[in-house]
Amino acid sequence: MEFGNLIDGKQISASIRLSVKEDVERLVSQGHRAPCLAVILVGERVDSQTYVRNKKKTAADLGIQSIDKVLPESATQQQVIDIVRSFNNDKDIDGILVQLPLPSHINEEAVLNEIDIAKDVDGFHPINIGKLSMRGRKPEFEPCTPKGCIELIDRSGISIQGKNAVVLGRSNIVGLPVAMMLMNRDATVTICHSKTKDLKEKCREADILVVAIGQTKLVKKDWIKPGAVVIDVGMNTDENGKLCGDVDFNECKQVAGHITPVPGGVGPMTIAMLMKNTLTSAQKKFCN
Amino acid sequence: MEFGNLIDGKQISASIRLSVKEDVERLVSQGHRAPCLAVILVGERVDSQTYVRNKKKTAADLGIQSIDKVLPESATQQQVIDIVRSFNNDKDIDGILVQLPLPSHINEEAVLNEIDIAKDVDGFHPINIGKLSMRGRKPEFEPCTPKGCIELIDRSGISIQGKNAVVLGRSNIVGLPVAMMLMNRDATVTICHSKTKDLKEKCREADILVVAIGQTKLVKKDWIKPGAVVIDVGMNTDENGKLCGDVDFNECKQVAGHITPVPGGVGPMTIAMLMKNTLTSAQKKFCN
Ligand SMILES: NC(=O)C1=CN([C@@H]2O[C@H](COP(=O)(O)OP(=O)(O)OC[C@H]3O[C@@H](n4cnc5c(N)ncnc54)[C@H](OP(=O)(O)O)[C@@H]3O)[C@@H](O)[C@H]2O)C=CC1
Ligand SMILES: NC(=O)C1=CN([C@@H]2O[C@H](COP(=O)(O)OP(=O)(O)OC[C@H]3O[C@@H](n4cnc5c(N)ncnc54)[C@H](OP(=O)(O)O)[C@@H]3O)[C@@H](O)[C@H]2O)C=CC1
Repeated sequence: MEFGNLIDGKQISASIRLSVKEDVERLVSQGHRAPCLAVILVGERVDSQTYVRNKKKTAADLGIQSIDKVLPESATQQQVIDIVRSFNNDKDIDGILVQLPLPSHINEEAVLNEIDIAKDVDGFHPINIGKLSMRGRKPEFEPCTPKGCIELIDRSGISIQGKNAVVLGRSNIVGLPVAMMLMNRDATVTICHSKTKDLKEKCREADILVVAIGQTKLVKKDWIKPGAVVIDVGMNTDENGKLCGDVDFNECKQVAGHITPVPGGVGPMTIAMLMKNTLTSAQKKFCN
Repeated sequence: MEFGNLIDGKQISASIRLSVKEDVERLVSQGHRAPCLAVILVGERVDSQTYVRNKKKTAADLGIQSIDKVLPESATQQQVIDIVRSFNNDKDIDGILVQLPLPSHINEEAVLNEIDIAKDVDGFHPINIGKLSMRGRKPEFEPCTPKGCIELIDRSGISIQGKNAVVLGRSNIVGLPVAMMLMNRDATVTICHSKTKDLKEKCREADILVVAIGQTKLVKKDWIKPGAVVIDVGMNTDENGKLCGDVDFNECKQVAGHITPVPGGVGPMTIAMLMKNTLTSAQKKFCN
């Protein structure tokens, strides 16, 4: 049995970005316009501003156009919806992303439901989640972070079919969709959350363990089945203010077969998948 | 520990039908029209004809109006879609049900997607499945058979929160939605299917076991954790041509805490829930 193989999200995401860049260049050389991502940011949260800046920078690096619309904290729900609608109607926009969280006076569900599902590159629309979950259906887009988790597993040469997969967390943006994707890849999936009893025992049964709970280094060495694949989605800060995951990496890498670090694991995959979804959206449009 | 308590679907569904009947009478006495269910049947499958006849009969018993539209096997997809659309536009119809399976030349997904989600009393539209699965979202309707399973558990006084629930089967109409409903009721859910290894071991961990695989009496006594709740959705015929479930009832009732028989378990709940969804649809309309 192999232990402690690092799943290098930095390297894997770099190779995905490179192939997206090449595909964008090909589209443009065929006479099409560059794919275009529109980002809506409401308010002045520093973390949200950082995310949006990173998305714009990555888009620019790959030749993807990006538009951003920044609204003040005081913006009304209707104003946000009006912008979503105008982006829906703009045929030169391929992807629409509303940076979450929105200010508390705005109903996120009402806003997200407005996004044209053909431009829902975040994959959060309920119809996309429904199709992602159902047998024989295909969503327009798979949500970016879950899709990134699956890519990390695939590109590490690990097969999913028939494996016991345990997902910690059931949020709409990570836990639930990643569980559905693992199920549709024929894993036997167990979904755990804050009401789960014997979390450690559940984890010990996992051949593939995906952790997305937002709890600093909760998952310890003796929670891991020897040789298991551990994907850590968590992005927390440790006691020294450093970015860390939900998994105690230094301990767990001694037991896991393959493991993602934080930073440098799932994190860089999310933006890479967003770029890929935006490209795919443009390709679908140009090829129809 | 208690053993072998029968969960009596016949009795529970009768009490649900009675309360639906009373609610229909109240609506009508308030001057509203009776709720109305429209059923579309394509082709001459004997089993489908039986289902449709039973639905009509139950509706009549409860004071719910039903319309049925029978099309020949040779009907085109467009003809079926046109009827769905005319029912969507008919404000006197509260629920639309397309009897499955459709003839193989018709794309089921294309037809089901046409049903107005406010009339999707079967709850099979992807947007309903998406909302059923997501945190903080509510579908217009919960699918009838899964909803029936949950009712059986609830009305037997069994709490779901924190329990280990194992679902055998992941179909769009039973396994997947029942798993999502158990998860949203705070069970820790494991979804098993034909690619699952060690099915027996998985079942033995279940406090609540829901079986929907269509395999005659596959689940045996030594698959059941003593005291577990066993919900058998299967409808198969045994070697003597008699209706039977996916669970070997005579064996398993010796170990299970609570168990549904077949017939007389989940079966009668499905139609009761369909009637309840149709009533709910009418109530929503009249109260807005
Ligand atoms: N790498 C990336 O690009 C991304 C990283 N993240 C990170 O992933 C983590 C999860 O994010 P997100 O899904 O949005 O978080 P949410 O807060 O929306 O969901 C957390 C989930 O974890 C469960 N949970 C919380 N505490 C425990 C516990 N002690 N034991 C078991 N389950 C628990 C919750 O259960 P319950 O449902 O019962 O409340 C919930 O389902 C965060 O650290 C976040 O920063 C998120 C998105 C992208
Ligand atoms: N009481 C009622 O009102 C209703 C009863 N039913 C009955 O419920 C049963 C299931 O129906 P439905 O969900 O439509 O069936 P499907 O055939 O659509 O799905 C069957 C599911 O069971 C899985 N499965 C099949 N064989 C095995 C096995 N040996 N071990 C583990 N998993 C297995 C399949 O796995 P995979 O996905 O890998 O193929 C699939 O997910 C049937 O008997 C049906 O008649 C259905 C609807 C209503």
